[in-house]
Amino acid sequence: MGLLLGIDVGGTKVAFAVGDGAGTLLASARRPTAPSGRGAGDVAAMIEDLRRLVRETGVSLRDVDAIGVSVPSPLDPARGVVLNPPNLPGWHDVPVRDLLHQAFGVPVFVENDANAAALAEWHFGAARGFDHVVYLTMSTGVGGGLILGGRLYRGVLASAGEFGHAPVEWDGEPCSCGQRGCLEAYVGGGAWTRRLRQIAPPGSRATQRAGSRDALKPEHIVEAARAGDAFALAELARWNHYVARGIVWIVMGLAPQAVVLGTIAVAAGEELAFVPIREQVRAHVWRFLGEGLQILPAALGATLPYRAALGVALEGLRVG
Amino acid sequence: MGLLLGIDVGGTKVAFAVGDGAGTLLASARRPTAPSGRGAGDVAAMIEDLRRLVRETGVSLRDVDAIGVSVPSPLDPARGVVLNPPNLPGWHDVPVRDLLHQAFGVPVFVENDANAAALAEWHFGAARGFDHVVYLTMSTGVGGGLILGGRLYRGVLASAGEFGHAPVEWDGEPCSCGQRGCLEAYVGGGAWTRRLRQIAPPGSRATQRAGSRDALKPEHIVEAARAGDAFALAELARWNHYVARGIVWIVMGLAPQAVVLGTIAVAAGEELAFVPIREQVRAHVWRFLGEGLQILPAALGATLPYRAALGVALEGLRVG
Repeated sequence: MGLLLGIDVGGTKVAFAVGDGAGTLLASARRPTAPSGRGAGDVAAMIEDLRRLVRETGVSLRDVDAIGVSVPSPLDPARGVVLNPPNLPGWHDVPVRDLLHQAFGVPVFVENDANAAALAEWHFGAARGFDHVVYLTMSTGVGGGLILGGRLYRGVLASAGEFGHAPVEWDGEPCSCGQRGCLEAYVGGGAWTRRLRQIAPPGSRATQRAGSRDALKPEHIVEAARAGDAFALAELARWNHYVARGIVWIVMGLAPQAVVLGTIAVAAGEELAFVPIREQVRAHVWRFLGEGLQILPAALGATLPYRAALGVALEGLRVG
Repeated sequence: MGLLLGIDVGGTKVAFAVGDGAGTLLASARRPTAPSGRGAGDVAAMIEDLRRLVRETGVSLRDVDAIGVSVPSPLDPARGVVLNPPNLPGWHDVPVRDLLHQAFGVPVFVENDANAAALAEWHFGAARGFDHVVYLTMSTGVGGGLILGGRLYRGVLASAGEFGHAPVEWDGEPCSCGQRGCLEAYVGGGAWTRRLRQIAPPGSRATQRAGSRDALKPEHIVEAARAGDAFALAELARWNHYVARGIVWIVMGLAPQAVVLGTIAVAAGEELAFVPIREQVRAHVWRFLGEGLQILPAALGATLPYRAALGVALEGLRVG
């Protein structure tokens, strides 16, 4: 296999990658997304940036086999058209696949960001070698990607894996999506941050680390918990508990070999997150499903955006 | 395509079928399972019964392309070995596939009953034409089968789809599986029957129809609800509510085109079950996922066991 190119279009940053089918990054670049209000114009700028990165890397476009693009939902994955993501103002039915194909003349594959991240962890990271594995982003929001039976499962409008918006408390906390009791309303970084700023005791080590309650973030909870702060430990226990609730559903419904957790779980690490989450999940699923189940930290860290885009390209070449 | 043979091994009955790839039944027979305490001996008796049915039907074994077998969990689907189902005493690691292959000399495919039922509804029933569809049995227990991306998804040990044992109330009602708060503990026919016999008012039309509280079954609730009985209507509303909770998870997690419900939901019908379930599900999932979603009654009714076995044979030939 030759080279792969990738673009990861986020709400705040765009990431560009030149790499190969093993996920090796030959070159990468990142800049603010700065949507111009015109989707096609934004894509044209990205095309120029990608061309420049290829040129600077000293590789030939003739050696490029495919381009992978990771974009925010919603999109039409069959046509590679980005519909109207709330965090990309001015993007309406932007034909990302066709625009890139016209510019580079190679196959272009487009996936939403959660699916792209799942593909990256599957091809290059913690989910390697599993046939049935669920990846959960654990960042500002909670999204998911499903590798089932050795391939990405997309569902209607490529929107499978929205476990962040399944109810862990029926009619529970309001969620930014408009529903109530969603997993994300309990464990999403955004919701958790809002909660912390309301309830953290001023004397908590977490509040002190943040400087003030209004500056509190999940990372301060993780730091304070590591130092033994009681409030932080209780908050993290609550976070682990709701994450476990979500995973129990995933395990009983999908019988995966592994569940891979990103961001906040990775930051909290083995003792503060994975050990208690595994324990609670195993106590609430059937024994033969829990015994072999792996609950693992995502492995790609800061390289995720680049390798997510490369993963999309690789998977596109693999299954078309 | 030629003929297909099928055997559905249930805890109480064994069903035999001669049919074709369109699900047409040319002949069928049914008898008590009556486990002898020796799995291989039971299979030998089934082989004789199937031979006799083929002979009586006047078809030639040379026209048979495959045999499908539906069995209770757990099993090893790759080897076609039934492990040790609680409702088949004396069955331990019974090599159903090899025994039938030796007897008939054609390909033999083995699936658990929930997957077989899902395949039958997909190939011959209410789930026809969908690429992403979840089938839920709604009988004594609650099981499920997943057709995802145009094929059966099995998961670890072919045990995906156990939505009946995912929690709709965390630490809720005890379930016969040993966990708490499982969907089955709220909507399974067994659990519901136990509840009804404890709480039904003697004056309820449901109790009267049953003759006594100790004889109450979900079917009496359905009959009494149809006649406007207040207790029965409240119980059915509770049943619909918990079914909807389960479906909300399925929809957010898997983004299916359709969910097909069997047995109790089919008996209750459109007005008493499907209309309120659809309404509650749509109110609790994202609009674009709820709008196109179909929630449909299973279509195969009493022919399900025969056609489940034929569905296994057909799917086996289709994907190997």
